[in-house]
Amino acid sequence: MKLSVRLMDITSRGVLLNRADARFMGVLDGDRVQVINESRGIAVPAVVDTTSSLINQGTIGIYRLTNDRLMVADDDTIEVREAPPPASIAHIKKKMDGMRLNKAEMLEVISDVVNEDLSPMELTAFVTASYINELDMDEIEHLTRAMVETGDQLHFSSHPIVDKHSIGGVPGNKISLLIVPIIASTGLKIPKTSSRAITGAGGTADLMEVIAPVEFSASEVQQMTEKVGGTIVWGGATNIAPADDRIILVEYPFKIDARGQMLASVMAKKAAVGADLVVIDIPVGENTKVTTAQEGRKLARDFIELGERLGMNVQCALTYGESPVGHSIGPNLEVKEALAVLEGAREPNSLVQKSVSIAGIALEMAGKAARGAGADLAQDLLSSGKALETMKAIIEVQGGDPAVTSADILPGDHSFDVHAPETGYVINLNNRALITIARAAGAPSDNGAGIYLHAKKGSRVQKGDPIFTIYAEKGWRLEKAIEVGRRLMPVVVEGMLLDRIPSEHWA
Amino acid sequence: MKLSVRLMDITSRGVLLNRADARFMGVLDGDRVQVINESRGIAVPAVVDTTSSLINQGTIGIYRLTNDRLMVADDDTIEVREAPPPASIAHIKKKMDGMRLNKAEMLEVISDVVNEDLSPMELTAFVTASYINELDMDEIEHLTRAMVETGDQLHFSSHPIVDKHSIGGVPGNKISLLIVPIIASTGLKIPKTSSRAITGAGGTADLMEVIAPVEFSASEVQQMTEKVGGTIVWGGATNIAPADDRIILVEYPFKIDARGQMLASVMAKKAAVGADLVVIDIPVGENTKVTTAQEGRKLARDFIELGERLGMNVQCALTYGESPVGHSIGPNLEVKEALAVLEGAREPNSLVQKSVSIAGIALEMAGKAARGAGADLAQDLLSSGKALETMKAIIEVQGGDPAVTSADILPGDHSFDVHAPETGYVINLNNRALITIARAAGAPSDNGAGIYLHAKKGSRVQKGDPIFTIYAEKGWRLEKAIEVGRRLMPVVVEGMLLDRIPSEHWA
Repeated sequence: MKLSVRLMDITSRGVLLNRADARFMGVLDGDRVQVINESRGIAVPAVVDTTSSLINQGTIGIYRLTNDRLMVADDDTIEVREAPPPASIAHIKKKMDGMRLNKAEMLEVISDVVNEDLSPMELTAFVTASYINELDMDEIEHLTRAMVETGDQLHFSSHPIVDKHSIGGVPGNKISLLIVPIIASTGLKIPKTSSRAITGAGGTADLMEVIAPVEFSASEVQQMTEKVGGTIVWGGATNIAPADDRIILVEYPFKIDARGQMLASVMAKKAAVGADLVVIDIPVGENTKVTTAQEGRKLARDFIELGERLGMNVQCALTYGESPVGHSIGPNLEVKEALAVLEGAREPNSLVQKSVSIAGIALEMAGKAARGAGADLAQDLLSSGKALETMKAIIEVQGGDPAVTSADILPGDHSFDVHAPETGYVINLNNRALITIARAAGAPSDNGAGIYLHAKKGSRVQKGDPIFTIYAEKGWRLEKAIEVGRRLMPVVVEGMLLDRIPSEHWA
Repeated sequence: MKLSVRLMDITSRGVLLNRADARFMGVLDGDRVQVINESRGIAVPAVVDTTSSLINQGTIGIYRLTNDRLMVADDDTIEVREAPPPASIAHIKKKMDGMRLNKAEMLEVISDVVNEDLSPMELTAFVTASYINELDMDEIEHLTRAMVETGDQLHFSSHPIVDKHSIGGVPGNKISLLIVPIIASTGLKIPKTSSRAITGAGGTADLMEVIAPVEFSASEVQQMTEKVGGTIVWGGATNIAPADDRIILVEYPFKIDARGQMLASVMAKKAAVGADLVVIDIPVGENTKVTTAQEGRKLARDFIELGERLGMNVQCALTYGESPVGHSIGPNLEVKEALAVLEGAREPNSLVQKSVSIAGIALEMAGKAARGAGADLAQDLLSSGKALETMKAIIEVQGGDPAVTSADILPGDHSFDVHAPETGYVINLNNRALITIARAAGAPSDNGAGIYLHAKKGSRVQKGDPIFTIYAEKGWRLEKAIEVGRRLMPVVVEGMLLDRIPSEHWA
């Protein structure tokens, strides 16, 4: 059926049909049609909404995200047809029925994800089925390759290319802001793509964005890396393994992190940037993603095996994940702390030690240091100011101000100190609760929001000492964060009566 | 945040925010907000779209399906808040992790489904998880009770109430149009709610709609049943077990029919109308939902057990499902055939025999006939015209024309005969292929579309005899159905060379 275009400024996917046209075509609300821009040869699937007044008969409303692909203009004539279900529906059903998907089937599913030929509901069924009927290593390899092939890839002329990844779950894990410049300062290339926080208080991309733009295409990432040795960009803007972002979005409400999809998600991004040497940071501890060392070792073996299948040398570091890295949680606070270390601060010890350990492993893998000497080299590169110099080059090449210093970066104006209810030792810091409070305060979208920890696990505190400070940009968000904090009690001081009314602990 | 309402004529759920307001609230496209009509005390969750031009700052666009619940008017002021995730998300995650849901958890999930507090993606995860990690009988009972409790229920003052259900998969299964009037003509009450076709060529509700309106509230169904003994209405309009329609919609793309959900779906509707005596028709055969008698017996035991738990006496009939019931497929053709039998036609045998057998079981259960004498009584009620008289009363009470006869109902104007390519016996009729052709011809939305079978399984045909006729209301749909038919070859005549070019079989 030929219809005349009316572009609609609705940031959504879909098309709006007049009810009479929909009835004539035999499609109902929620059905899928194919809209075809014949002059450009572009066909896009879209879900139908109907109206009896907003759009006249003979006209079709096109929502913004659909037109991002369709690229038509007002009053263009386009062809609209009932759309057949995509072939990958059958493969998803197969996975639901407990069977294995082969390489071609997995590629078809992931291509349909990338082309948005699968509805969010259909993608959810795939993700749920792959979570319950766990992918085996062959399927994980197929999935990883499919994610790589359906996106952009970097091709460097000289090697090795280094990369690192933290599997997350620990707040304040700003180590990439140190590791990338340390590695790049030796002449090695590290085109790091990172994520924005979904459930966290700040992903590496959210942090870097405080001091420089982070949205670049894959070829820009390659050019910048060739020039200054490294980048710290948002992977979501690069079209590298684009299927992954869509899958993560579907996992989000359930906070599931299916093993197979997590392995594929991480390794597809490493393979797509052409990495040869990869260090994976696996934080282990209560309230992180991996709770026991045994589980961590199993995951490490899986990463190493998948790396071998894809031609990458992978080493993993099981790290202490029971309390935050450094003292700060939230974009500005974390960037301030990381810049201070690059500028020569020797504290916080947890941040410095973790960063040089992981950078050290990569330097050893690349042959820049002898086995066992990598961390010392990394520390030298920090102390000598070489890493800072490289970080300034990275900031500049990404379009930020290289003159920025830690003193320039400030937390939000609204703050609230939480005091120790008793004298004693800090025996527990609940990572998830800290993240929830930081998010309630506005992190990561409000850069100035977050938490500064004055006392960490094992510290001795006197009754009335500040244990941590909550920062926010907006007063009402601070109020909300305080309320959340009263409920969650993220810090436990030994001797504290757990059955007291929580509000009493917040004097 | 307070915003001013602008109603938008888009048949969809959701709200449209100006991008500046969305940013201020910290919500992104696709996030969930709660919109609150404070004067009426109604809070509705809604998914956010954003715009920079279609809606001004300070204004919120409300789509039609959201306003069906919110009930606000243009320029009303409403409160909009970030919405917390519904509690049932945790229960769905639990099911994904292979655990059992208790009664309270299942009720919470189903309440959230009915209140649309779960997104379609979240509901998909629940359905997929319950399909893979099969529900046990306790969970099925909880699910059934939850479906009943979250919808309207009928409460008749006198009993027994009879009901029947066919689990589907066989084309042309118009038996309810005979069974309901047969039962009701004895003074028993049978408030039958039926479905529209989702994957079929015509559900009972689609058929009945040819001769009478089928959309009524639960209390109207009760009143009509009290008056004339029975109804044949569309369950989707009644708000009886409304969760079920939403679940079925999610299952649709994958054609899954999870055992637990199917049992709950059928039995919730029977429990909600207050049925005491239920007959379940389980068609068995290749290309139906149940392919072996063993599988059919297992399903029958499950229906009987679930019935016992819910206080209903259930009997099941395993029926022949390898070829269509009667000769006709598609709304008008099926109604014409059923009315002709009510008017006294003794043919088609398959339709008459199946209808009187199943009606007979119900009559025996209700004590209207001795064991073994039910089918004869049913046949008498048909032959004597009593069933026809009751059918006319049902048509009239639902608002149709009781004077309608089989001669008044005609198929579409466009038709195409398919001829036997060889002389021989019809050795196979492919149910799914016949349905696909009927749907391609326009069934069930075009009432006149469908298939009339001249020869059934086992019939002797001469080369060149018409085997079946395709009917359509629109020429282009007929063309499409012919094309689909050439590809699928739904009828196999013994001796036919299967490797000939299919188009040669369609002279």
